[in-house]
Amino acid sequence: MDKIGTMVMSRKDVKVFDCTIRDGGLVNNFQFEDEFVKGVYDTCVKAGVDYMEIGKNNSPTIQSPKEFGKWNFCLESDIRKIVGKNNTNLKIAVMSDIGRTVKEELKPKKESVVDMVRIAAYMHQIPSAIELIEDAHKKGYETTINIMAISKAMNDELDEVLDELSKTPVNIIYLVDSFGSFHPEQINKLAKKYTKIAKNSNKLVGVHAHNNMQLAYANTIEAMMYGASVLDVTISGLGRGAGNCPMELIVGFLKNPKYKLMPILKFIEHYIVPLEKKLDWGYSVPYMLTGQLNEHPRTAMKARDDADINFCDQYRTLLDTQ
Amino acid sequence: MDKIGTMVMSRKDVKVFDCTIRDGGLVNNFQFEDEFVKGVYDTCVKAGVDYMEIGKNNSPTIQSPKEFGKWNFCLESDIRKIVGKNNTNLKIAVMSDIGRTVKEELKPKKESVVDMVRIAAYMHQIPSAIELIEDAHKKGYETTINIMAISKAMNDELDEVLDELSKTPVNIIYLVDSFGSFHPEQINKLAKKYTKIAKNSNKLVGVHAHNNMQLAYANTIEAMMYGASVLDVTISGLGRGAGNCPMELIVGFLKNPKYKLMPILKFIEHYIVPLEKKLDWGYSVPYMLTGQLNEHPRTAMKARDDADINFCDQYRTLLDTQ
Repeated sequence: MDKIGTMVMSRKDVKVFDCTIRDGGLVNNFQFEDEFVKGVYDTCVKAGVDYMEIGKNNSPTIQSPKEFGKWNFCLESDIRKIVGKNNTNLKIAVMSDIGRTVKEELKPKKESVVDMVRIAAYMHQIPSAIELIEDAHKKGYETTINIMAISKAMNDELDEVLDELSKTPVNIIYLVDSFGSFHPEQINKLAKKYTKIAKNSNKLVGVHAHNNMQLAYANTIEAMMYGASVLDVTISGLGRGAGNCPMELIVGFLKNPKYKLMPILKFIEHYIVPLEKKLDWGYSVPYMLTGQLNEHPRTAMKARDDADINFCDQYRTLLDTQ
Repeated sequence: MDKIGTMVMSRKDVKVFDCTIRDGGLVNNFQFEDEFVKGVYDTCVKAGVDYMEIGKNNSPTIQSPKEFGKWNFCLESDIRKIVGKNNTNLKIAVMSDIGRTVKEELKPKKESVVDMVRIAAYMHQIPSAIELIEDAHKKGYETTINIMAISKAMNDELDEVLDELSKTPVNIIYLVDSFGSFHPEQINKLAKKYTKIAKNSNKLVGVHAHNNMQLAYANTIEAMMYGASVLDVTISGLGRGAGNCPMELIVGFLKNPKYKLMPILKFIEHYIVPLEKKLDWGYSVPYMLTGQLNEHPRTAMKARDDADINFCDQYRTLLDTQ
C-alpha cells in the first residue's frame, strides 16, 4: 500500500481525537476540576477537534468514588454540566474498561449527550469487548475497539483478533502502542495491516501512541500516512508516564483549515503551565527504558512516584526480569 | 533507493557521534567544568561511541575568552588535560565556524590529539567552507561539512551546493535540520539525495537533528534507514533550545553489541539530573512554534530567556513576520 496524501495538502478523512481528560485522568485518578474539563471542551470546539473523550464510564458499583474522581464514572449529569446539550461539531466519547463497566448502566444514545463508546481491551478480553461493542452499537452509539499491548502478541494472534473484530459492528479499530515501544518502521507495517482489514469491512483505523521514546508524534504521522485516519492526541501530551501525542503538534501539522492552533496555545498558557508544577508526565529515562524493552511501565511508574533516579539499577532490574 | 538494514540486525557502517559539549556549549557559552567534560569523554569511551566533538576551535583573536568558556576555543593543552594522548577507539572532533576561525591556528594533525574538523556553514558560505575543508584535509584531519538552514533553500540551490562539495576532499556531508522543521517524510527524500551524491564521490552522510517537534530521534532513524551512517547525538539531548537527538535513545536502539547503554545512564544520574536544575533545554512550545513555521529560533530563545509563556502572542508575532 502506498503513502496517502502529501505534505502540502489536507486529507478530509483525517479526524483529531482528544483524550486529554481520559488519558490525563490516569495521572491524577480523574480528579480534574470542572473548570479544567470545561476548558478542554471549549478548546476542542474552538480548535476544530472532532472528538473529545471526557473520561471513563466505569461503574461506581465496581470502582470506588472515594478513590477516583467523577471523570472515571462520567455520570450523564456531570457531563451535561460541562457540555450542556453540546450543540457543536465536537462529538463526546467515553471509554469502557473490560470488567469495570456494567452494561445495564449504559443508557440508550437518545437519552445521552455521549456520541461514542470506546472499548479498551487486552487481546484475551476480546470476547468481552465484542459484547460491549454490540451492546453500545445496539443502543445507538458509535464505537471503537482499542486493542492493547499488541507489542506482546504473536503475529497470528493479532491477525485472528483483527479478523474477529472485522465481523463486529465496531466503527473504528485502534492501533495502540500501549508501551511506547514501537518505531515508525513497525507502525508502518501495522498501519497497513489494520487498514487492509478495516477497509474490507468498511471500518476506519485510529492510532493511539505513547511518548516513551519521543516517537508519539512521529508514529502518529506514520500511521496516518499509511491508512489511519483518527488521530488520538492530548493537550501538551498530558497522559500517564511519558504521555501522548501532543495536540499542538498534530494541529500545527494538519493542513485542513478547520483546525486552529491558537485556542490550544491559549489553553496551555492558562491551564497546562500551572498544571506542570503539580503533575508529573512526559519523556523521562525510566519510561524510556520500559519502552525500549517493550515492558509494561510499572517499574517506571514506581520510579517516578519515588523520585528514584537510580537509572542504572532500574535498567539492571528490567534486564534481569525479562 | 530501498531501506537499508532491519530492526533486528546491526549495521557495521553506522557510527555514533557525540556533540554533548559542542551543542551543549550553545546553552551555557561553553562554560563546562573539566570534570563534566571528562565525564562525557569517559562515558563515550565506555559506551562505544565513535566520535566526541569537544567544542569549537574558534579563535580567541575573534571571540572573547571573557564571554566564552574554553570549549569555544579548544586549545590543544585544554583538550589534552581531558583526553591525554587519547589511546582509545574514540575519535576527537572540533567544530569550525566560518569567519570565527583562523586557518593558521590549526596545527598539523601530527601535533594534535584532534582527529576531525567539522565545518559548519550556511549555504552562502560554501566557498569559505571549502577553503577550510581543504586546509584541514591537507593538514591530515578527517573533515565534515555541516550545511545549515537547508530548509530555507530552494531545491536547486542545495543540489548545486552538494555537487560542489562532492568535488572536495571532505569525508562526511551532513544532513542538518537546523530549525527542527523537517518531518521524517522530508528527511527521507533528503537522505536519499545526500546519499546518492555521497556514494558517487566516496563520501559518507551524517545526520544532525533538532527536537523542536519531538522528531529528532525519529528523523535520525529515518535518515539512517535511507543512507546516513554517522548519527549525531547528545546525552539527554543537551543542546540549544529543543535540544538534539538523545544518545540514550540511539544507543538503546542500535543492535551493534559494541554500544553500551549503562555508562550513559550512569552519566545522566550523576551529571544531567543536577544540570537540569541549572540549564534550560528540551521541547517547549516556543521552539515548537519556530520549528513548525520553519523559522530561526531567535524568538524562542528570547521567550525562554524571559520565561515568557504568552504563547499566543509569540505565535501571532511569528505569523505576522513570516
